[in-house]
Amino acid sequence: MSSQTFPSKLLENAVNEFSRLPGIGKKTALRLVLYLLRQDKGVAVQFSDAIRQMREEIKYCKVCHNISDTDVCSICSTPSRDGRLVCVVESVKDVMAIENTQQYHGVYHVLGGVISPMDGIGPNDLSIGSLEARVKDGTVAEVIFALPTTMEGDTTNFYLYRKLEPYQVKITTIARGVAIGDELEYIDEVTLGRSLVNRQLFSTTL
Amino acid sequence: MSSQTFPSKLLENAVNEFSRLPGIGKKTALRLVLYLLRQDKGVAVQFSDAIRQMREEIKYCKVCHNISDTDVCSICSTPSRDGRLVCVVESVKDVMAIENTQQYHGVYHVLGGVISPMDGIGPNDLSIGSLEARVKDGTVAEVIFALPTTMEGDTTNFYLYRKLEPYQVKITTIARGVAIGDELEYIDEVTLGRSLVNRQLFSTTL
Repeated sequence: MSSQTFPSKLLENAVNEFSRLPGIGKKTALRLVLYLLRQDKGVAVQFSDAIRQMREEIKYCKVCHNISDTDVCSICSTPSRDGRLVCVVESVKDVMAIENTQQYHGVYHVLGGVISPMDGIGPNDLSIGSLEARVKDGTVAEVIFALPTTMEGDTTNFYLYRKLEPYQVKITTIARGVAIGDELEYIDEVTLGRSLVNRQLFSTTL
Repeated sequence: MSSQTFPSKLLENAVNEFSRLPGIGKKTALRLVLYLLRQDKGVAVQFSDAIRQMREEIKYCKVCHNISDTDVCSICSTPSRDGRLVCVVESVKDVMAIENTQQYHGVYHVLGGVISPMDGIGPNDLSIGSLEARVKDGTVAEVIFALPTTMEGDTTNFYLYRKLEPYQVKITTIARGVAIGDELEYIDEVTLGRSLVNRQLFSTTL
């Protein structure tokens, strides 16, 4: 499709824009654009408006950097949530994933990435300073690390640990182990090994 | 993800709009939206503008109904193309596919679909009247059917054949047979059977 000749410049532009998105190739982009073209004009206009409005008007919570329509997000501003418990995550997607479990009643801190020298992302590109400030305040009792189990995630955990260590705050990390429903024979040895080392007292309640 | 709680209404809107596109689920939609959010504001705005402009300003060729930026498309208005040869296709995608072969020098007629009573698409929903008018004009020598080999495609072929039969015009259909590179043992029997019935004189030039 590289030498594709489009019957229209407008069509070509729209296809190019779509195919710039991750995981969308030229063929899929063309299919999506032709779909929008077949629908009523309102469908494409509404689509276009939603994207533009989202990008132009969306805010980030001043406290936790989560996406928000207000200055302080709905999680940080809910009085029933435990503000002394702060879960550190990489991105908004992770906040949504944890919220979906309905098992967590603390608040969050969205770093906006993990330290990755290969991609040119250093500590100063992430919202680490504001996390330190929150902890320094003395209102935080426990910081839970919930970063990805990659080299970059581990590096970030280590960096944060060194930063937060001086303040008398409990630092924990989410449990790693065999996922519910997984079969032992297919688990990688690192996970299986850790799940043995970090074994828990058996309980019939969970 | 059905009971997904979004941290922002704007985010939710954008995700919903994306997931309305065919083949895009909620998870993919969220991934695409968060990608646009991570980029410079200009990227999302340009994306949004390209879609809106495409939908609002795109035209269809008066002659062949192909997508066009002008009243008559670039194919119909090229003098070197043989206007007496009209290839009937379902959609713009098929025009692009045939143009890519660089083997066709006639013009097109885009039906905008095929007759499909199950989907409520009758002959009047397609640009069949204008095809008949083109043939009636007497400037068309041959009409080539290049519709999909589905029941709907066959029905449409038959309907068109009956419509165009009265006018002294040659009616042909693109060759069906074993695709180049295909192995015989994996071809369905209908295609293989037809390729034997419609066998061609061997030639060393093609």
